[in-house]
Amino acid sequence: MRKATYTHACIVERKAFTIGIACESRMVEADYMGIASGRDVDKFAVTGLTFVKSELVDAPYASEFPVVLECRLLHIVEIGLHTQFIGEVKDVKIDGACLDAEGHVDVGKLDPLAFAPDTGAYFALGALIGGAYSIGKSFTTETSS
Amino acid sequence: MRKATYTHACIVERKAFTIGIACESRMVEADYMGIASGRDVDKFAVTGLTFVKSELVDAPYASEFPVVLECRLLHIVEIGLHTQFIGEVKDVKIDGACLDAEGHVDVGKLDPLAFAPDTGAYFALGALIGGAYSIGKSFTTETSS
Repeated sequence: MRKATYTHACIVERKAFTIGIACESRMVEADYMGIASGRDVDKFAVTGLTFVKSELVDAPYASEFPVVLECRLLHIVEIGLHTQFIGEVKDVKIDGACLDAEGHVDVGKLDPLAFAPDTGAYFALGALIGGAYSIGKSFTTETSS
Repeated sequence: MRKATYTHACIVERKAFTIGIACESRMVEADYMGIASGRDVDKFAVTGLTFVKSELVDAPYASEFPVVLECRLLHIVEIGLHTQFIGEVKDVKIDGACLDAEGHVDVGKLDPLAFAPDTGAYFALGALIGGAYSIGKSFTTETSS
């Protein structure tokens, strides 16, 4: 995050932040969040998103985003033009509709946005194409019994 | 990265690392890279990927990955069970077939993998669904002339 942003100042002062995973159905609201500054406007009022004050950290979140992480600030790392904030996740709130039968996040149901900064574009997630830590085993010479 | 990994030790010792963006056509090789350890096997020899010694930093990369970042180690941040390495990108090598007419990365041509760690799955990227810093302007009340 650049130092000039209002969010930067809020995170440093409150030692807390939240992260909401933006999904396709909230793409326009999420994009507005990245255009406007909380210094000038009430982004929740403008977009109609619901302002929720976290009970765990000193920061708000929008209840409409399907995954929200509430974080306590742990480290501040200065990297060139940007500051990196590293937080301890105090809680993860997930819309139950995005979970599979075993309680794992079903990424297909979550429908998260992928952001391509170079061209300024949002992409949807595509098909499930392979199992991690699995398909690469075709290169191992050992055969399991 | 966990401290127990061979890669962790190499990065600390050489103060350098490279990052290759895995694409769908190299998904099996990329997955194997995450399964096997360089302490035990020559991952390049096993997968058939081409070993290239970076001329800029003390680390190798596979020439088959369409985007490669060569990084000099800047910061080491200890975060719970993992170490975060932050690097200065000394060069980015991109397969020309993944660029658009203006020289930007065409994410659709790049075809990067998305990794869902919770369920251990790789997803393809889907359709371009919106313009960033653009679609959210529908919430702004000002009209530009």
